[in-house]
Amino acid sequence: GRKLHVSAAVAEDRRIEQESMLSEKPTTLLREGEDSDDKNGLRARFEQMVFRIQNDVCAAVEAIDGGKFREDAWSRPGGGGGVSRVLQGGTVWEKAGVNVSVVYGSMPPEAYRAATGAASTKPGRIPFFASGVSSVMHPINPMAPTVHFNYRYFETDAPEGVEGAPRAWWFGGGTDLTPSYFFEEDVKHFHQVQKNACDKFDPAFYPKYKKWCDDYFLIKHRGERRGLGGIFFDDLNDRDPNELLAFATACADSVIPAYIPLIEKRKDMAYTQEQKEWQQLRRGRYVEFNLVYDRGTTFGLQTGGRIESILMSLPLTARWEYDHHPEEGTEEAKLLDACKNPKEWLL
Amino acid sequence: GRKLHVSAAVAEDRRIEQESMLSEKPTTLLREGEDSDDKNGLRARFEQMVFRIQNDVCAAVEAIDGGKFREDAWSRPGGGGGVSRVLQGGTVWEKAGVNVSVVYGSMPPEAYRAATGAASTKPGRIPFFASGVSSVMHPINPMAPTVHFNYRYFETDAPEGVEGAPRAWWFGGGTDLTPSYFFEEDVKHFHQVQKNACDKFDPAFYPKYKKWCDDYFLIKHRGERRGLGGIFFDDLNDRDPNELLAFATACADSVIPAYIPLIEKRKDMAYTQEQKEWQQLRRGRYVEFNLVYDRGTTFGLQTGGRIESILMSLPLTARWEYDHHPEEGTEEAKLLDACKNPKEWLL
Repeated sequence: GRKLHVSAAVAEDRRIEQESMLSEKPTTLLREGEDSDDKNGLRARFEQMVFRIQNDVCAAVEAIDGGKFREDAWSRPGGGGGVSRVLQGGTVWEKAGVNVSVVYGSMPPEAYRAATGAASTKPGRIPFFASGVSSVMHPINPMAPTVHFNYRYFETDAPEGVEGAPRAWWFGGGTDLTPSYFFEEDVKHFHQVQKNACDKFDPAFYPKYKKWCDDYFLIKHRGERRGLGGIFFDDLNDRDPNELLAFATACADSVIPAYIPLIEKRKDMAYTQEQKEWQQLRRGRYVEFNLVYDRGTTFGLQTGGRIESILMSLPLTARWEYDHHPEEGTEEAKLLDACKNPKEWLL
Repeated sequence: GRKLHVSAAVAEDRRIEQESMLSEKPTTLLREGEDSDDKNGLRARFEQMVFRIQNDVCAAVEAIDGGKFREDAWSRPGGGGGVSRVLQGGTVWEKAGVNVSVVYGSMPPEAYRAATGAASTKPGRIPFFASGVSSVMHPINPMAPTVHFNYRYFETDAPEGVEGAPRAWWFGGGTDLTPSYFFEEDVKHFHQVQKNACDKFDPAFYPKYKKWCDDYFLIKHRGERRGLGGIFFDDLNDRDPNELLAFATACADSVIPAYIPLIEKRKDMAYTQEQKEWQQLRRGRYVEFNLVYDRGTTFGLQTGGRIESILMSLPLTARWEYDHHPEEGTEEAKLLDACKNPKEWLL
């Protein structure tokens, strides 16, 4: 709940400047000086982690697809920026994107209180730093699932003109699977890899973050989730930040082993025109979730993020049929039922 | 601005019951008793007007398309309901829908104050009544434009347990055109018919409501409108309600003469696969506007309206390409320019 308040309050700040495109990917998006000099600081280590994940995931996708990611890098005058990589019209994926971004902004004191619970003693705005990697990959074959992951690190500075005020930080993120057709072994494999990453840090993590994911990706007006979940967490700051950085890294590193084997198994399966249309209807649901509920998308649209990078998550094509209901007993009904009634896959 | 506050406050009330489907269209959706007995009351006359418009528009569409609208009627236990008509997979339109609805609800006192400016003396919830017709029609041919119209009447009762408290009412609505290709004569014709309807009531109406339309249908995160406008108004209550009912009726009656001739001219034009894809990209923008900004849609999703009727406005198919920009000097660039820079079409 906390982050919602922060987003709403930060969203009031529309003073973020427009980005400029860069001719090539910079080695860092951090502000020159304190941030970029402190190579062992959390900001620098997190940024290097998300750049590595971007490289690794894009390499794994290119190896299967044969296509190449296009890269767009941009920066903002006051520091921050991003590197977007997009593969469109591939042989396996119709649209796949992996974004890295670094944002420097400032939030009003109410947002700071909402985020930290700390009473702010002075009325100055609170500078914040946010860095993350986010990715959505939509394959062509309706038997092959879409995946999304996002890992981010957030810090606030002391309010302007205040020394030694509390500094807040937290990690957030998750990885979730959105199939159009239900293969139980795929869902189990995907969840098992997430659970393995979680269990190395705390056996309580997977059950908690699996449920959080089921709750978060609910399309409320449909009473169904966009897909079959995975893990999702936010506001994570109750352990040593180095341990939480290691946890976020382990989660991000689990994307390839969780997802790529499913693509290899499903990418060349035969399918019908009707199955393709069902996939397109599920893509429509994906659009509904992202445009109506997803915090990253709505926050980005409100705060003047780079639109093309934010909306990269939308599928290449989507479909809405009036009052469509799959017939009982069909594969389509089975998928829909799993989206409406989340299960424990690893019992 | 006022209506936004009302929507947000009403949205907190999620106690609206689920609808039941009816076997046939009822003669009225008004509550039995006071509302349905008062045949000359504004509620009854407005409802009969929107039912007539629904019949007229569907008949005009069927006459050109050859296909038939499917009809779904539903009601709510406490009164209210709707009649949706949808034509999907026609020969001219890939998806066309015309909805009539009647909603009985109640809003918290803050929403009432925001709507009326009147200080509420008691803390009771304020019952409201809303009735309207809304329609979106998406043709197959990319040279043929999409149209949307919506006309609605809103009333609040005295707060519960309060006698003689101020009763608020207002009219709202509009008709707007969304082409994928720019034919200046079409846009001029469409606007001229709207202007003619407006001018019979007040020469100040068209300029004011044309600008309101341009402002309302802005996709803020893109800096472009979804289409080429028309008219839009809200909160209209500063004249005799009978005159405003006549004005809303004249606007609704202008939909067929404004739109149908454009369809007749464009429905059989030749087009390429590239032109179809451009139409699909513009349909993607339509989805962005409706899911992110449209008050009717977001209000409906939040207040538990009938989902299939609300989302009937979405196109059958839509497309999102990463970082797509039409080449300068092309027909696609011309349309986009007109969406970014609204013009006075009738000077």
